[in-house]
Amino acid sequence: MAHISLPEKLPGILGPMAFRPEAARALGALAETILRGPASLSSAERELIASVVSRANACLFCCESHSAAARHHYGPQAGVVDDALRSVDGADLSPKMKALLHVAVKVAKGGKHVESQDITKAAGANDQDIHDTVLIAAAFCMFNRYVDGLGTWAPEAGHPAYADMGRRLATEGYEKP
Amino acid sequence: MAHISLPEKLPGILGPMAFRPEAARALGALAETILRGPASLSSAERELIASVVSRANACLFCCESHSAAARHHYGPQAGVVDDALRSVDGADLSPKMKALLHVAVKVAKGGKHVESQDITKAAGANDQDIHDTVLIAAAFCMFNRYVDGLGTWAPEAGHPAYADMGRRLATEGYEKP
Repeated sequence: MAHISLPEKLPGILGPMAFRPEAARALGALAETILRGPASLSSAERELIASVVSRANACLFCCESHSAAARHHYGPQAGVVDDALRSVDGADLSPKMKALLHVAVKVAKGGKHVESQDITKAAGANDQDIHDTVLIAAAFCMFNRYVDGLGTWAPEAGHPAYADMGRRLATEGYEKP
Repeated sequence: MAHISLPEKLPGILGPMAFRPEAARALGALAETILRGPASLSSAERELIASVVSRANACLFCCESHSAAARHHYGPQAGVVDDALRSVDGADLSPKMKALLHVAVKVAKGGKHVESQDITKAAGANDQDIHDTVLIAAAFCMFNRYVDGLGTWAPEAGHPAYADMGRRLATEGYEKP
């Protein structure tokens, strides 16, 4: 049971967002900017970073919903998302993308865990790639803690509701009209 | 040295924010909403939560600048900020505020560390107090990682620049006009 009274039917972040619409608007705008705004990394890559960080933080709702969004973006290459969630190094990703995912996991442990050699390994990554990787990883350390720190509920892993959510997040985005 | 090329003179979060103005607007709006928007907790209390979490995450820049903002808000009671940073239980704060700060530190460890008895201890806290505590703590797990994950620099602890920043944050806020 959630730690505060939330609308019962809404899973994950949706309950707290309905409880506090002012914060929800700011959080939605941030997600839209970092995951779907203009950037050197694709939305597929950015949703994959969000998924890997949410898995590192053991946040079921965020990992399931954002990995579904990443799968939608990757289309025929969607299998890479599940591969990366099992093992970043085992997935069919560029060395640059693998290095950025390793940076993201270090950010999840704590900002000071990122060392200059982690950045050097991301050969071919530009400053915007690195900036956005760190910010997305940091932001999901927030979203994950918001969802779990309030004790929200989530459909079980693999529930079909996540594929619907992922499609909507990938196509319609994070800001309510 | 920062992990990407940032404007050299800007400390802490200010460098990355200048590097990526779109993200800066979203982050500024979020900080404004959660720290200065309408809420049941005062801005003094919310900046204190931000300070204690930033201290738990060992983020010098965020701890120094937000504790300066908290001191400005507390005015003649500013000493409570330094007391709480040394020891939450040793500070002259209400039992409710102490319990909320303990919840915030648990959120910093990870969302799942918050247990129902942590919430029960916050006697007198309403659902908005608890929601906002969790969200502010989660958000500073983001801001702290953003600042440190990019390897930004910060003036030393106690540098007079922080008192200026704190006054500006407390009086002018987080959104650029």
